[in-house]
Amino acid sequence: MANDKKLVESITDMEVDFAQWYTDVVKKADLTDYSTLKGCMIIRPYGFAIWERIKAELDRRFKETGHENVYMPMFIPESLLQKEKDHVEGFAPEVAWVTQGGEKKLEERICVRPTSETLFCDHYANIIHSYRDLPKLYNQWCSVVRWEKTTRPFLRTMEFLWQEGHTAHATAEEAEAETIKMLNVYADVLENVLAIPVIKGEKTAKERFAGAAATYTVESLMHDGKALQSATSHNFGNGFAQAFNIQYTDKDNKLQYVYQTSWGMTTRVIGAMIMVHGDNSGLVLPPHIAPIQVMIIPIAQHKAGVLEKANELREKLSAVCRIKMDDSDKSAGWKFSEYEMKGVPIRLEVGPKDLEKNQAVLARRDTGEKITVSLNELEEKIPALLEEIQQNMFQRAKDRLESRTYTATNMEEFEKILEENPGFIKAMWCGDQACEDAIKEKTAATSRCIPFVQEHLSDKCVCCGKPAKHMVFWGKAY
Amino acid sequence: MANDKKLVESITDMEVDFAQWYTDVVKKADLTDYSTLKGCMIIRPYGFAIWERIKAELDRRFKETGHENVYMPMFIPESLLQKEKDHVEGFAPEVAWVTQGGEKKLEERICVRPTSETLFCDHYANIIHSYRDLPKLYNQWCSVVRWEKTTRPFLRTMEFLWQEGHTAHATAEEAEAETIKMLNVYADVLENVLAIPVIKGEKTAKERFAGAAATYTVESLMHDGKALQSATSHNFGNGFAQAFNIQYTDKDNKLQYVYQTSWGMTTRVIGAMIMVHGDNSGLVLPPHIAPIQVMIIPIAQHKAGVLEKANELREKLSAVCRIKMDDSDKSAGWKFSEYEMKGVPIRLEVGPKDLEKNQAVLARRDTGEKITVSLNELEEKIPALLEEIQQNMFQRAKDRLESRTYTATNMEEFEKILEENPGFIKAMWCGDQACEDAIKEKTAATSRCIPFVQEHLSDKCVCCGKPAKHMVFWGKAY
Repeated sequence: MANDKKLVESITDMEVDFAQWYTDVVKKADLTDYSTLKGCMIIRPYGFAIWERIKAELDRRFKETGHENVYMPMFIPESLLQKEKDHVEGFAPEVAWVTQGGEKKLEERICVRPTSETLFCDHYANIIHSYRDLPKLYNQWCSVVRWEKTTRPFLRTMEFLWQEGHTAHATAEEAEAETIKMLNVYADVLENVLAIPVIKGEKTAKERFAGAAATYTVESLMHDGKALQSATSHNFGNGFAQAFNIQYTDKDNKLQYVYQTSWGMTTRVIGAMIMVHGDNSGLVLPPHIAPIQVMIIPIAQHKAGVLEKANELREKLSAVCRIKMDDSDKSAGWKFSEYEMKGVPIRLEVGPKDLEKNQAVLARRDTGEKITVSLNELEEKIPALLEEIQQNMFQRAKDRLESRTYTATNMEEFEKILEENPGFIKAMWCGDQACEDAIKEKTAATSRCIPFVQEHLSDKCVCCGKPAKHMVFWGKAY
Repeated sequence: MANDKKLVESITDMEVDFAQWYTDVVKKADLTDYSTLKGCMIIRPYGFAIWERIKAELDRRFKETGHENVYMPMFIPESLLQKEKDHVEGFAPEVAWVTQGGEKKLEERICVRPTSETLFCDHYANIIHSYRDLPKLYNQWCSVVRWEKTTRPFLRTMEFLWQEGHTAHATAEEAEAETIKMLNVYADVLENVLAIPVIKGEKTAKERFAGAAATYTVESLMHDGKALQSATSHNFGNGFAQAFNIQYTDKDNKLQYVYQTSWGMTTRVIGAMIMVHGDNSGLVLPPHIAPIQVMIIPIAQHKAGVLEKANELREKLSAVCRIKMDDSDKSAGWKFSEYEMKGVPIRLEVGPKDLEKNQAVLARRDTGEKITVSLNELEEKIPALLEEIQQNMFQRAKDRLESRTYTATNMEEFEKILEENPGFIKAMWCGDQACEDAIKEKTAATSRCIPFVQEHLSDKCVCCGKPAKHMVFWGKAY
C-alpha cells in the first residue's frame, strides 16, 4: 500500500500549484515525454490515442460538410511567405529557418511552415480559373512550427499537431457562412465529444489572426479560472486573393477575386481537456473520447474462476464499449490509482465474492461513486452509464463556467474579480484598442471575444466610460 | 468530340516515353501539383484519398499486430544524429539544416528528420528499464525530408509522407521475428490491396539501411521493366542500443541491451501502383484502394426519368460500393475519358434506352469490356465484378512479373537481357561486393534482393565465376 499511496501523492494538488499539477498529470498519465530538443514534445501512445480520436471526430465532420484532405509541403520559401504583408509580420519573428540543404548553402532561406495560408494561396492561384472551380474546400492534417521561448506540453510547444482548413469561395457571403459553419463544427466537437462548454464569438481587431478580416473563436474556461482559446476560424475576405492574384471568371465572363477562409484546431485541446476535467487523482476523460472507456480489474485474480469470468466479460462487453483488462501481477490498489490517473471513465471490479452473487462493481471516475450491478445487466448498464458520465462532465463544466463568469461595470470591480475569483469577466467596451491595451496593462486580462450572444450590461465602456459598442468576455488566458 | 479526344491525346504513350507518360498521368489524373519550392509536391484531394486508404489498410494491420502510434518531434539536434556512426554517414549528406529560430541564430544546427531512429532510441533509453517494459511496438505517421537533387512526384521528392515503425525487444530472435512479420504485412497490403505482386528477400550488405544488421525488402516490377523497392524492414540487432545505451534489467536482474527494428512504407507506393497498372488511357486503380469504385454517368440526362433513376441507383448502390455520379453539363464522352484517366474501376452508364429495358451498362476499366446488367441485379453484380477486377489486375501483374523475370548464367546473357527485355534477372552471386560493383558499373543494374525463395541456377557467380553463395534478383531500379 505504501507504493499505491506514493503514486497518488506524487501529484501536486491543483489548489497548491496548478501549473505543477498540470505538468504532473501529463507526465504521470503517460501522455507525453520531453525530447532532447527543448520545447518539443514526444506524444506517447496514450496521448496520441486521444489525438487520434479527436482527429477522427473532426475529420468525419469535415468530410460530411464536403471538405477534402490534401497535403502541402512543409517548407515555404521566404519570398512566398512575404507576399501578404500583415501575415509575414505576424509570423516571421517566430519561424524556424532552413538555410542549408545537404552540403549546400541555400540561395534563399526557407521556413518550416508556421501555418500554410501562403502555400494554399499559391496552389489556388494555379488551379482556380472559373466559377466552376469553386468552392474549394480543403483541409490538411500536419504539424507546424513556431519558435517559442517558454513552452508547456500541449499548451505551447515549438512544434504541434493540428488541422488547417483553407477554403476559397465565389462570394463574401459564402466565405462568411463557411467561417461560421466551421466554428460550429469546433463547438460541436468541444461540447459534445470533449464535454468542454464554450463561448462563441468574434475576436477584436487587436486579437485577429495575421491577415484576417475577421477571426471567430471558441473560448473555454480552465479549472484555475484562466481562459483557453480552443479553436479559431478566420474570414480573409479577398485580401490574400489580391496579394496572390487568385482570380476566377464569373458567369458573366468577368474576372473576380475569390474570398477565403481558414480554420484550425490543435493538440492544445488535449491540454484544455486536462485542465477542464482533471482532479487531484489525475486525468478525467470524457467517455466519448477515452481510448479505454472501461478497465476491468480482477480482484484476488489467483482465486479459481476469477480470471476466466473477467476475460469472458471483457469479450462480451467489447461489443458495447472500448474495454481492457489489467491482469498483471501488480496490486489491485496500484491498478486503481493507475487508471484513475489515466482518467478511465469506469473501473469494473470483479472478485470471488462478486461472482458468488453474479455481480460486479462499477466505479465512476467522475464522481467516485460505486455501483453494484448484476452481470446480466452490464451490457445495458455500461453504455448508459458512459452516457451519463459524459453528460455529467459537460454539465459540471458548464455550471462552473457560468458560476465563474462575472460582470464588471467599472475597473475597480474588474480588478477585484480578477484578484478574488479569476474567471471570465463580462464587461462593456467602446471598441477602442486603447482600452484593450489599458486593461491588459492594468490587469493582464485580454479580450477573449465579443460573444455572439450579447447582453446590455450598461451604456458605458468599463474602461474609459465612453459609449459602449459591445459586451466583451475578458480573462487571463493560456 | 474534339475536346474529348484532346483529353486522351494529351497523354504520351508509355511505349513512346515512359517517364513522360508517368508525369502526364500524375498531372492529368489530378494526383499532384508542383509547389513553388522545387522538389516538393502538393498532394491533391484525389491523390491524398488514395494515400488515406493505404494508410487505413496499414494502420489497421499495425494495430492488429499490437503496435501503438506515437508522435516524435520533426527536429533532430546534430549531436543526436551523430550518435550512431553508420547512420549519420548515411543520412547527413541529404538533410535540411535549421540554423535559425525566430530572430536568433541557433548554437547547434538542427536537422529536419530524414528518418527517426535517433529520436526513438533517445526516447527508449528514457522509458525502458525492465524486461516488463518490453517489447515496445511503436509506429508513427509523418513526413520526412531528404534533400534530393532530381525529383519526380511520389517516386522521389524532398519531402514525402510515410510511416516508420520502431520497436525494441528483449531478444535477437524476437527482433528478427518482428522484422519478418512486418515485411509480410507490407507484402499483404501490396499484393491484396494494391494488386502489386512482390519478391520478398534480403538486401545485400551494400544495399542495407544505414546502421542496420539486416534489411529485408519487397521488390516490385514496373511496366517499363524497372524494379521499385516498395517497402523495407530493418533488423538493427543491438547496435543502436549500444550507441544510445538502451538497457533493461532482465529476470535475473542483469543489464541487457535491447534489440531493435524499424520498417517503413511511403507515398512512393502510389508511384508503383501507377506504373504497375496504368495504361495509355491513364490510371487504373485496384478496386480495394480506389476512392471511387463506380462512377455513374447518366446518358442523355435531360430526358425524363434518367437523372431520377441514376440518383436512385447511386443511393441504393452506395450500400455496397464507393460510388459517385457525374451529372455535370459536360459531354458523356468527356466524362468517359476523365474517369478512365482517373482509373475508376467501373463506369455505370444509364440512359433512356437502358431504362426502357430495365438495364444498365457496366464498363470495366481494367479490360474495357462492357456488360449489360439488369437493374435488379446490380447490387449483387457490382461487388462481384469489383472483386473480379481486383483479382484480374493482380494476376495480370503477376503474369507480367513472371514473364519478365529472366535467368542469366554469365555476363553476356545478363547484358543482353537488359538491352533487349528489361526486367528482373535471376543470377547467382558469390557474395562479394566487388561483383555487385562491377555489375552496376557495366549494366547500371543493382542487386534488388536475395529472395527468400532460392533456386540453384548454377554453381558459379554470374560475374566472377567463383563459387556462388546466393541467387540474387537484379534489375535497374527507381
